[in-house]
Amino acid sequence: MKRTAFFISDGTGITVEALGRSLLGQFEHTEFEYVIKPFIDSVEKADHLVSQINAVAELDGIRPVVIDTIVDVTVRTALKNANAFMLDIFSTFLAPLEEELGSASSYSVGKSHSIKEDDQVYKDRIDSVHFAIDNDDGGRTRHYDTADIILIGPSRSGKTPTCLYMALQFGIRAANYPLTEEDFDYGELPKALRQYKHKLYGLTIDPARLAAIRNERKPDSRYASIRQCDQEVTEAELLYQRFGIPYINTTHFSVEEISTRMMVEAGIERRASPK
Amino acid sequence: MKRTAFFISDGTGITVEALGRSLLGQFEHTEFEYVIKPFIDSVEKADHLVSQINAVAELDGIRPVVIDTIVDVTVRTALKNANAFMLDIFSTFLAPLEEELGSASSYSVGKSHSIKEDDQVYKDRIDSVHFAIDNDDGGRTRHYDTADIILIGPSRSGKTPTCLYMALQFGIRAANYPLTEEDFDYGELPKALRQYKHKLYGLTIDPARLAAIRNERKPDSRYASIRQCDQEVTEAELLYQRFGIPYINTTHFSVEEISTRMMVEAGIERRASPK
Repeated sequence: MKRTAFFISDGTGITVEALGRSLLGQFEHTEFEYVIKPFIDSVEKADHLVSQINAVAELDGIRPVVIDTIVDVTVRTALKNANAFMLDIFSTFLAPLEEELGSASSYSVGKSHSIKEDDQVYKDRIDSVHFAIDNDDGGRTRHYDTADIILIGPSRSGKTPTCLYMALQFGIRAANYPLTEEDFDYGELPKALRQYKHKLYGLTIDPARLAAIRNERKPDSRYASIRQCDQEVTEAELLYQRFGIPYINTTHFSVEEISTRMMVEAGIERRASPK
Repeated sequence: MKRTAFFISDGTGITVEALGRSLLGQFEHTEFEYVIKPFIDSVEKADHLVSQINAVAELDGIRPVVIDTIVDVTVRTALKNANAFMLDIFSTFLAPLEEELGSASSYSVGKSHSIKEDDQVYKDRIDSVHFAIDNDDGGRTRHYDTADIILIGPSRSGKTPTCLYMALQFGIRAANYPLTEEDFDYGELPKALRQYKHKLYGLTIDPARLAAIRNERKPDSRYASIRQCDQEVTEAELLYQRFGIPYINTTHFSVEEISTRMMVEAGIERRASPK
């Protein structure tokens, strides 16, 4: 039976959605329809949402699941009128935390405040995005001295999205440099990279997957042939091994996983942590 | 008194960190030091982490706060040996959910599985990243027919990071086009945009903030002068109003907030939702 789940937040809803999906994803036998409701930050909006939830309950023939991270107690109280099974993150965890920490939370004293990032931290994130774009694909190499990490790998092995994810999510300055046939022929590290060996991180990928990705871009080209992909991947891995460059196989990993795994391995601290 | 908080996950740790910061951020009077521990996916790693937590407890003179989203029950049980105040997301919420849904979770039957994104959804995200880069800054306009949204606004008002965020987080195909003095002189919508009026979304920004951002890039230039910024912002807002283009002031918003607010206003559904 289909069940509707509402993920409700007074902010962007990104955290509650991630949490909600991960919780409800544990129930294989229930088919959920997810509805995300960000910016529910007033009693009026909550009241309106209650009507929506109740209408869905009627339509589904069963009360929806509601997971919320609303901080303001009056807004949350208004939401409680809904005909729903409610999991309220803040009220669940803040009481035990208050006891442990021996102090009242802003929440419980009715002085809720949103968690604003530090301005400098936010600036780091945005600057890192521009850094990633300006130093994408080996186009420019003269700013490598200010990079936190330089990703190398064959074309379409995942360098660009990973750099951008690290920038946006963690404020990491990540450049990337494509490894091409010329680089392999040479038998040495590309000149632009030599003095930054300690910043290099290699990407590799299953050749069949790489061929599939390249085929979407340039169908039936030499570039996309399995033979070419196989050769580039083999050469890239040899290069990583020869120069002791750490590397990761991206085939089965998302940009989130690639980024965090690389950062753990390379010992790079998260500079920013968006809400 | 300083208190250490560990955010622990068997995955990337992104969700538990966001949740943990938002919970502990409600306690203004406690100074936390956050430690993020991703990929704790074996009993061995959990045991090792327990030693770390206990060492920190000794050093701090007070037990740390631990918030975790580990799914596997044996790993989580190992973690329970730590001298810490533990908030366990899964054990807290899965029991009531099991009761409400009338079925056991994979978690409780010991068959935990990570929530993998659908391959197609992931592909959409990565394709959208390449789309955003290829269609950044008005460089190319011929693919606007396949864009979900086209951001317009003065240089450095936040278009590029917002497009990339929408791509990475939500799989939205977002292009962007810079509004320049020529566009304003003309008194009409730039030619490349005319047939896509329904896809346009404007950005505006406080001129003083814009000048500060531009000054970092080109100090003391005409481009960065408050007079120039003021004029461009004024003209951009006039253009939005004249052509009935929705717009948002980015001055006090993060890319997360800009993206989600725009998507709510423009009625654009989230296509992807990373874990």
